[in-house]
Amino acid sequence: MMKLDLSHALLKEDVLSYQDVVSKYHDQLVNKTGKGNDFTGWVEWPNNYDKEEFDRIKSVAKDLRDKCEVFVVCGIGGSYLGSRAAIEMINGLYNKDKVEIVFMGNTFSSSYIKNVMDYIADKEVCVNVISKSGTTTETALAFRLLKQFMEEKYGKEEASKRIVATTDKARGTLKAIADKEGYETFVIPDDIGGRFSVITPVGLLPIAVAGIDIDAIMSGLAKGYKDFGDADLNKNIAYQYAVARRILENQGKDVEMLVSYEPQMNMVAEWWKQLFGESEGKEEKGNLPTSANFSTDLHSLGQFIQQGKKVLYETLLLVEKPTSDLEFPSDPDNADGMNYLSGKSVDWVNKMACKGTLEAHEVTGNVPNILITIPDMGAESFGYMCYFFFKACAISVYMLGVNPFDQPGVEVYKKNMFRLLGKN
Amino acid sequence: MMKLDLSHALLKEDVLSYQDVVSKYHDQLVNKTGKGNDFTGWVEWPNNYDKEEFDRIKSVAKDLRDKCEVFVVCGIGGSYLGSRAAIEMINGLYNKDKVEIVFMGNTFSSSYIKNVMDYIADKEVCVNVISKSGTTTETALAFRLLKQFMEEKYGKEEASKRIVATTDKARGTLKAIADKEGYETFVIPDDIGGRFSVITPVGLLPIAVAGIDIDAIMSGLAKGYKDFGDADLNKNIAYQYAVARRILENQGKDVEMLVSYEPQMNMVAEWWKQLFGESEGKEEKGNLPTSANFSTDLHSLGQFIQQGKKVLYETLLLVEKPTSDLEFPSDPDNADGMNYLSGKSVDWVNKMACKGTLEAHEVTGNVPNILITIPDMGAESFGYMCYFFFKACAISVYMLGVNPFDQPGVEVYKKNMFRLLGKN
Repeated sequence: MMKLDLSHALLKEDVLSYQDVVSKYHDQLVNKTGKGNDFTGWVEWPNNYDKEEFDRIKSVAKDLRDKCEVFVVCGIGGSYLGSRAAIEMINGLYNKDKVEIVFMGNTFSSSYIKNVMDYIADKEVCVNVISKSGTTTETALAFRLLKQFMEEKYGKEEASKRIVATTDKARGTLKAIADKEGYETFVIPDDIGGRFSVITPVGLLPIAVAGIDIDAIMSGLAKGYKDFGDADLNKNIAYQYAVARRILENQGKDVEMLVSYEPQMNMVAEWWKQLFGESEGKEEKGNLPTSANFSTDLHSLGQFIQQGKKVLYETLLLVEKPTSDLEFPSDPDNADGMNYLSGKSVDWVNKMACKGTLEAHEVTGNVPNILITIPDMGAESFGYMCYFFFKACAISVYMLGVNPFDQPGVEVYKKNMFRLLGKN
Repeated sequence: MMKLDLSHALLKEDVLSYQDVVSKYHDQLVNKTGKGNDFTGWVEWPNNYDKEEFDRIKSVAKDLRDKCEVFVVCGIGGSYLGSRAAIEMINGLYNKDKVEIVFMGNTFSSSYIKNVMDYIADKEVCVNVISKSGTTTETALAFRLLKQFMEEKYGKEEASKRIVATTDKARGTLKAIADKEGYETFVIPDDIGGRFSVITPVGLLPIAVAGIDIDAIMSGLAKGYKDFGDADLNKNIAYQYAVARRILENQGKDVEMLVSYEPQMNMVAEWWKQLFGESEGKEEKGNLPTSANFSTDLHSLGQFIQQGKKVLYETLLLVEKPTSDLEFPSDPDNADGMNYLSGKSVDWVNKMACKGTLEAHEVTGNVPNILITIPDMGAESFGYMCYFFFKACAISVYMLGVNPFDQPGVEVYKKNMFRLLGKN
């Protein structure tokens, strides 16, 4: 389903020459003998996820969709990026679905929080609070505000039917609150970290509430499991991408820019940044993940990419079939001189812009380009793409020699912040 | 009004030791003897902008606000980033203003274009098409679609009253169309490039239609003109920032990350990326501009910044007074353990998160931090901040030895694209 093209990547080494090292880390990943193996539950997830819980997600989502105009997702990091990425990619921007998804609990900005609270004040609201422990400060702060708002608006009993908690199966602050209040709950597995959690209830419930077919996501995931399961580099494009990244880093590139030509892929890029940046940014190693949307940003970042400092390579995340297309109309006057495009599909124009840019960046600008193509922006493609990036990330980061599955650096700011906030 | 703090920037050189070189480029800028001096019209713009045209912007904007629910801004690069940055910064996200601003003409994505066309189909619509020549392909393509849509919806005569063109004063395709159709027009000055154009009708008309006080923007701009007009580095924080950027680049940092703690500043970061990236990304020089929003992205990019490869420095764009604030409520149960924050303002929590993060990144992570503080996210602060960044950009890029005001690299992809599209 997906395609990888490394012919524009300006690689000075043969990807296949890395077979031995890839095989080693592949074995460590599937045998759970590598670094961070406590958090590799995502590997077998396409087979062993809880089918009963999955069915419950669908029925609860249906019920929530009937009840609300706005569904507030309260979470941070992996507890909002994955679902937001999926919802924007699959539903598009300016979607007219009857349920609007709004994100909170991912910022301390009082201006943003107040804006959202005012926005939802007179709407029908349901809430999904997502936190493994319940002590993530951004999320806990927003959830106290939301809980009081819901109880004032609906009364305690009805509020408890409109709030769903996705949290630890047994322990933690949020689990205790949910049990006490009688919230519906879903489980965050112990062995799947936040940046891999979009394929668990963390991502799937908000995605389902947005009206998206989560069966199709799991079906894409299962296909990805099959297609990216082979240790053989010849047969596994996820592993080829993993190796190409390391080769480009060896060639002196410090920055990987994920580029899309579809605005509705912007949040996928944000999700991808967490996946790769948090997995490999350790021990002063790794590529800084950044992103752009073309041709839009060719009119802002294009100059730098073309002629600025040669610090980056581009990874194009291309879409074969757009969600919708239209034919460019003719105009008898042709006052704008655009009749040379009459009768062409707008998507064809987009693809020619991509082709021309690739040539400009690679040939004239000497910027390496990795091309990844997904078939469309549907739910199955999303699931499939997740598994592609998960496997690529794990192997690529193992090749750096660091643990892909922890995030010790995230604690540093929290420790300082708690001291300043006077938390005991 | 604005403040600059370089005490966390880990500078190994004294900013003030650059006085001679800064004075030289300051003179070249104000005397119009430096590189690209044909495009320094923005320098004196706070004094010599066309007051009659400015009043006409206000009256036309008022008329448009009465007429439409959706105002479509059709432009790319500087012709959309500046107004979008101002509107989101000043009005906030989830704004309930009666006029919604929608951007088109900045992408070839058929999925996005179709999404927008469907979204506006049954709404009251006015359009602002923005292009100096009228031949920018993304914008011309979208405008043909919009023009036909408007003429079908409203008839030719009414459509021509609902479309406003911002374009060259006399020449070009768009000017010809506007004259023929009888559109109201505003002028893009010859000597102000796209990335500086937010202070001209290009930015001001959409900003005014969004209900924002553009007098306040011009008043902030005039204050910036005064405060950032001195060649003396001791007295000019815009120039101090310009120098600090170059010192950090000399210290081996290739990437500048603009960080805000307010989600409604995200588009300001996109606008800033064009301003700096397009101005200095030449001759294989310059810092790659990138951005993040904290504390949100501490849960995605935070790990990399804290412990990953040391490629970047952070420029914090902080806000003294939030647009709105709220007191964190107490809870007798305290089941979430958050009562230690009861009675505190949420903005105070945000500021403590910032303080803790700064310490984590600077002290533990060895990441330089430049601190820029604006007083608030109002219109006057926006205008003032624009002038700060304009002056900083010009001097900083002159110090690199390149022309800050051209963008030769942007043409390369266009040339290839035109060939592929079969344009003669």
